[in-house]
Amino acid sequence: MNVHGKPTRTIWLHPQNPAVVQIIDQRALPHAWVIEDLSTVEQVATAIRDMHVRGAGLIGATAGYGMYLAATEAAAADKGTDFMREAGALLKATRPTAVNLAWAVDRQLHAMASAQAPEERATIALQTAQAIADEDAGACRDIGEHGVALIEQISRSKAGAPVQILTHCNAGWLAFVDYGSATGPIYAAHDRGIPVHVWVDETRPRSQGSKLTAWELGQHGVPHTIIADNTGGHLMQHGMVDLVIVGTDRTTRSGDVANKIGTYLKALAAWDNGVPFYVALPSSSFDWGMRDGLKEIPIEERGSEEVKYADGLSGGRHLEVLVAPATSHAANYGFDVTPARLVTALITERGICRATEHAICSLFPEHARATP
Amino acid sequence: MNVHGKPTRTIWLHPQNPAVVQIIDQRALPHAWVIEDLSTVEQVATAIRDMHVRGAGLIGATAGYGMYLAATEAAAADKGTDFMREAGALLKATRPTAVNLAWAVDRQLHAMASAQAPEERATIALQTAQAIADEDAGACRDIGEHGVALIEQISRSKAGAPVQILTHCNAGWLAFVDYGSATGPIYAAHDRGIPVHVWVDETRPRSQGSKLTAWELGQHGVPHTIIADNTGGHLMQHGMVDLVIVGTDRTTRSGDVANKIGTYLKALAAWDNGVPFYVALPSSSFDWGMRDGLKEIPIEERGSEEVKYADGLSGGRHLEVLVAPATSHAANYGFDVTPARLVTALITERGICRATEHAICSLFPEHARATP
Repeated sequence: MNVHGKPTRTIWLHPQNPAVVQIIDQRALPHAWVIEDLSTVEQVATAIRDMHVRGAGLIGATAGYGMYLAATEAAAADKGTDFMREAGALLKATRPTAVNLAWAVDRQLHAMASAQAPEERATIALQTAQAIADEDAGACRDIGEHGVALIEQISRSKAGAPVQILTHCNAGWLAFVDYGSATGPIYAAHDRGIPVHVWVDETRPRSQGSKLTAWELGQHGVPHTIIADNTGGHLMQHGMVDLVIVGTDRTTRSGDVANKIGTYLKALAAWDNGVPFYVALPSSSFDWGMRDGLKEIPIEERGSEEVKYADGLSGGRHLEVLVAPATSHAANYGFDVTPARLVTALITERGICRATEHAICSLFPEHARATP
Repeated sequence: MNVHGKPTRTIWLHPQNPAVVQIIDQRALPHAWVIEDLSTVEQVATAIRDMHVRGAGLIGATAGYGMYLAATEAAAADKGTDFMREAGALLKATRPTAVNLAWAVDRQLHAMASAQAPEERATIALQTAQAIADEDAGACRDIGEHGVALIEQISRSKAGAPVQILTHCNAGWLAFVDYGSATGPIYAAHDRGIPVHVWVDETRPRSQGSKLTAWELGQHGVPHTIIADNTGGHLMQHGMVDLVIVGTDRTTRSGDVANKIGTYLKALAAWDNGVPFYVALPSSSFDWGMRDGLKEIPIEERGSEEVKYADGLSGGRHLEVLVAPATSHAANYGFDVTPARLVTALITERGICRATEHAICSLFPEHARATP
């Protein structure tokens, strides 16, 4: 989507040096625009672990490029498949909840398995990394095409008054390679001239809503309003939300949705107020091996300092401030699981389906037999 | 409750100068301990409006003392009842949601109505202000005595493992004159040696949970953990919360509960997971003239800067940092309404009752006929 008026992706090969991958260091947003060079798989692991990049699709795409950098290093230093397996393990260990991470690493290992020589492996790895990125962007574009129909329908029923959409965290283009999952239908509607307004959940503790979603919507010119995470229920009680669209870090074959902590609370409020609750996802975010999201999806616990501190701009400097008593403990669960029963439908690159195993597998029949 | 090991209230008459009321400037907590002198009703109005003091009971008690300061000024300058009515109107206009505010002002005006002279009015106003404060503390102590039975019962069923209590915002002693409403039962349990652990919702945008509840629990030695507001649902899904206790700024005679924005979301999660959801309140927080909380209770909208900024300590200085893009809009609704159907029971100074008009009026029969 547009940044400073120019179409931009979230990850790309350095235009002058194909041994370097470039990303946006998202930790600096919305206050600064920082491009970071990654040359080694260790740097890629750090960028994922410390959240220079984040979001289901982008984590997968970055891991794909990480495996390419590892293959390049292996070719230069004549390292074997053990090295590649270790690189894969290093990347997989960075974030436990996002299923795209393991999916991208395994896809790379599988693709490289047929290579006869280290150089061929590196070539295959580059092709695969670029395919993962292109497919991610393509899937989000298709999610937008399918999802925009839902917004268009509401817009007609409101006689063109702005369609009020609530979203949580950042499932925008910054979380993918382009377009975004939850934002895919929103950008598609906006670009077609359908009036929309987005309620952006702040999304503490890391505030990806305030920092990333608000920023990217603003850059693309989409009207939006930031709200504290506590606010969505009140808005829905008062008819101020027409639909909710969120992303997911992992969705089971039965439609249970792991997403940023707090998503479950919004799903409950939507259900209580008859507001449709949609989850937008490329099929790479399905975990075909899981049925019970609450019992099976591992939930990442992060450092307590993210809860006790907030960071932002003060006097032109990017600072952290201690919000809580220094001696108080804090807990930081990164995700929660919204049971399928609270999800109105899933918006995928192949179309829209109910959050049931039957409906999901009807859209993705190649996974119908791969029961866990 | 204890501050630096010493029993403390939230508002008191200056020990050397009865024309001055002293409060804790709660905006400085948890980072600094600041006592503020208030000598005029205008200063009191500012302290309430700008939230040097906040919380249902403390707003009422502060307004009571504000009317006393106005009566003192009226006596000194020989001003009449018009001045007192204007002082009452000034105080009532500071915060729209808390019912205790109007209740305290009206109680003062009613008490002073019988006075023959300005001096007598000032004497009555002081007695009334102190009675409001003492009754508030007494009501919270009684709420604690009634509510502790609920915690004791769970403690027995858990064979003494810590009872896990979730609370939202600050309905602690800092929100009242002493003890607190939601914290009343918690302090009573802790002081009796019943092991408890409190999950403290951060409560954006003003973070009264992180800043006030965590601080006061810590000062009194109660084990607690701060969590982002997004977290409670996840904890309840995983059996990590035994009960929820929150306060209220206004509860209708039918049991609809206005409380800090986000309370409704926690009530939904408690309901979805079979966790009891209690609201603790002195009867001064009932609005006997209202039945439909969602339609009738006015919801305060505050400045967007509270959402776009966070404040805290950095390098020894108390700073504000901009979290969001400078150009993004933000909305800031202060409260939401939890429908009575989601409330397990109300804990009042007279005992525990279900959140129905019949049950509430059985406990407060003097209001049974005062239908709106």
